[in-house]
Amino acid sequence: MSKKICLTGVKPTGMPHLGNYIGAIKPAIEMANSGLYDSYYFIADYHSLINVHDAKVLKNYIYEVAATWLAMGLDPKTVTLYKQSDVPEILELNWIMNCFTSKGLMNRAHAYKAMVQENEKEERDRDSGVNMGLFSYPVLMACDIMILNADVVPVGADQLQHIEIARDIAHSFNSIYVKDYEKMRQKSPDSKYKIKGSILTPPEAIVAEGNKLLSGLDGRKMSKSYNNHIPLFSTEKELQKLINRITTDSSGPTEPKNPDDSLIFDFYQTFATADQTADLRSRYLKGIGWGEAKADLLNVLNETLRGPREIYNELMNDTKKIDLILEEGASRVRPQAQKLIQEIKKTIGVK
Amino acid sequence: MSKKICLTGVKPTGMPHLGNYIGAIKPAIEMANSGLYDSYYFIADYHSLINVHDAKVLKNYIYEVAATWLAMGLDPKTVTLYKQSDVPEILELNWIMNCFTSKGLMNRAHAYKAMVQENEKEERDRDSGVNMGLFSYPVLMACDIMILNADVVPVGADQLQHIEIARDIAHSFNSIYVKDYEKMRQKSPDSKYKIKGSILTPPEAIVAEGNKLLSGLDGRKMSKSYNNHIPLFSTEKELQKLINRITTDSSGPTEPKNPDDSLIFDFYQTFATADQTADLRSRYLKGIGWGEAKADLLNVLNETLRGPREIYNELMNDTKKIDLILEEGASRVRPQAQKLIQEIKKTIGVK
Repeated sequence: MSKKICLTGVKPTGMPHLGNYIGAIKPAIEMANSGLYDSYYFIADYHSLINVHDAKVLKNYIYEVAATWLAMGLDPKTVTLYKQSDVPEILELNWIMNCFTSKGLMNRAHAYKAMVQENEKEERDRDSGVNMGLFSYPVLMACDIMILNADVVPVGADQLQHIEIARDIAHSFNSIYVKDYEKMRQKSPDSKYKIKGSILTPPEAIVAEGNKLLSGLDGRKMSKSYNNHIPLFSTEKELQKLINRITTDSSGPTEPKNPDDSLIFDFYQTFATADQTADLRSRYLKGIGWGEAKADLLNVLNETLRGPREIYNELMNDTKKIDLILEEGASRVRPQAQKLIQEIKKTIGVK
Repeated sequence: MSKKICLTGVKPTGMPHLGNYIGAIKPAIEMANSGLYDSYYFIADYHSLINVHDAKVLKNYIYEVAATWLAMGLDPKTVTLYKQSDVPEILELNWIMNCFTSKGLMNRAHAYKAMVQENEKEERDRDSGVNMGLFSYPVLMACDIMILNADVVPVGADQLQHIEIARDIAHSFNSIYVKDYEKMRQKSPDSKYKIKGSILTPPEAIVAEGNKLLSGLDGRKMSKSYNNHIPLFSTEKELQKLINRITTDSSGPTEPKNPDDSLIFDFYQTFATADQTADLRSRYLKGIGWGEAKADLLNVLNETLRGPREIYNELMNDTKKIDLILEEGASRVRPQAQKLIQEIKKTIGVK
């Protein structure tokens, strides 16, 4: 039996930070390299276009996200890595699916509703600052998935609605063009997902539970918007500076310290081996100077990130290598995408 | 100097009637064959998909509209005739332009507003029956035009808003990516249209004024929805039947009749020569039987339509001929479309 198709999209928004790595990139790469699925990763550059209207910035974002995933261990030989805009069939499917998506679905999409709420709070026109990309991107997301007839999509809990919308669209198309679709669904053990004979595959969400959330330098959730983040490929010097920003109490270097109440320790154990962690724990309990603990954290971060940082910098200094990998990825995806589009065009009657 | 590019889109909705021919097809073909413009005609099949969810029906509509234009004299050698869905670059541009189109523009589009009004009147949800195709098609229309950087678009007065929206989108894109665009616009003699250095061409509408409106068999405007129409390629027998449906008064065959108050005469003069018209006028004034007048009308309609009907039937019986013409048209359009898309992709930073 062939493996299930698993698709992950990453919106390019600049260099990820350690929190993104621990919470999303690391588990995704582990999943991709597990061999359990036929895995596809794509850079969702056309989603970034919704609000990035600066060519240089967008181009750089795209390279940064590609270089990050490659540097952190995504193997483009076993996983297909491609750029959304290199697969124009997605955009054909996008228009076609517009004609099978009720506007009400978009009215109720979380991101749009949040924007309307914000506008109403500020007493602006409810659609102020909303472009048609922002309003309709859940249709594009559905097409990102359906163009490959992906079976599963790993998402955060906040993305579940997008997968539900994709399923709604797939069902609404199938029920028009697949004979006896609704009858077959009623008989199916799980009518939410793919049933025999369907043209579009309603995708299944995999919600990664218990992914570790990393705190930021000030103890709140790590986030660029709080400016408490550590960029994933900071230089050693930058790392040192950032680690120095972690506030500590005034206890002396010989006083025992509680590892479970220490941000430094928390960072450390995320990146260190079990042995290293046990060792630092005992030194905390015996008494350790904050300077020493910070130096240890710097060392372990540096050990983990030195190799990837070199690969990252290498790729960013020679973006043609990235181009080649992405082009190769797209060339693997396009024949499947074209096949689906041809089938869809015949189905709707334009071919 | 190269000729201006003139683009006309036709939404396939089934065989046109005589009113469509007189009001739209005839003047459009005269314009195309005038040689004043570099003319493009496209079949807007992806617009029909908004509400035609039956493959057989849509496929037939596409052939009917292509066969009609060809039968009525559109010369595919001098005019490029193509099918929208054969130019996938339009759909790429469509997504890109979504990101530069404020949702407010769509909220105010006439067709959508009419639908909302109807829903409110019927006390339904305001977006009931509205799909994302219906809501967002003005963006697609703008892309139909901009993919060729068409200069002029002949439209009916009810379509003017679509051209304004296309201009808005073009300006909003240009003003972000073309250096000093707004400054240049201010200096331009007509800031509504194309200025030097712009990437997208804001199109100009040509509103055909005084196009003859043909009445239907009951004297109201000819329309399929009133079922008072004469299909353009009715057989002679069907024509006769339809003409017989025109109601007349009870005046006898020798009584003088007022030609300017006669639907039969009105039809007649639309299709007859000036001499034929003058002759029938004098016979009306002298006294003519309704049966005779109807027979004359049938004759003149038949004379005009016999040739085109034969071509039409020939094409509809061998749709491969239509396919070839449309494919040839698309192959002329696509290199230009690809060139524009490549430029746009570089401009926004995804290439």
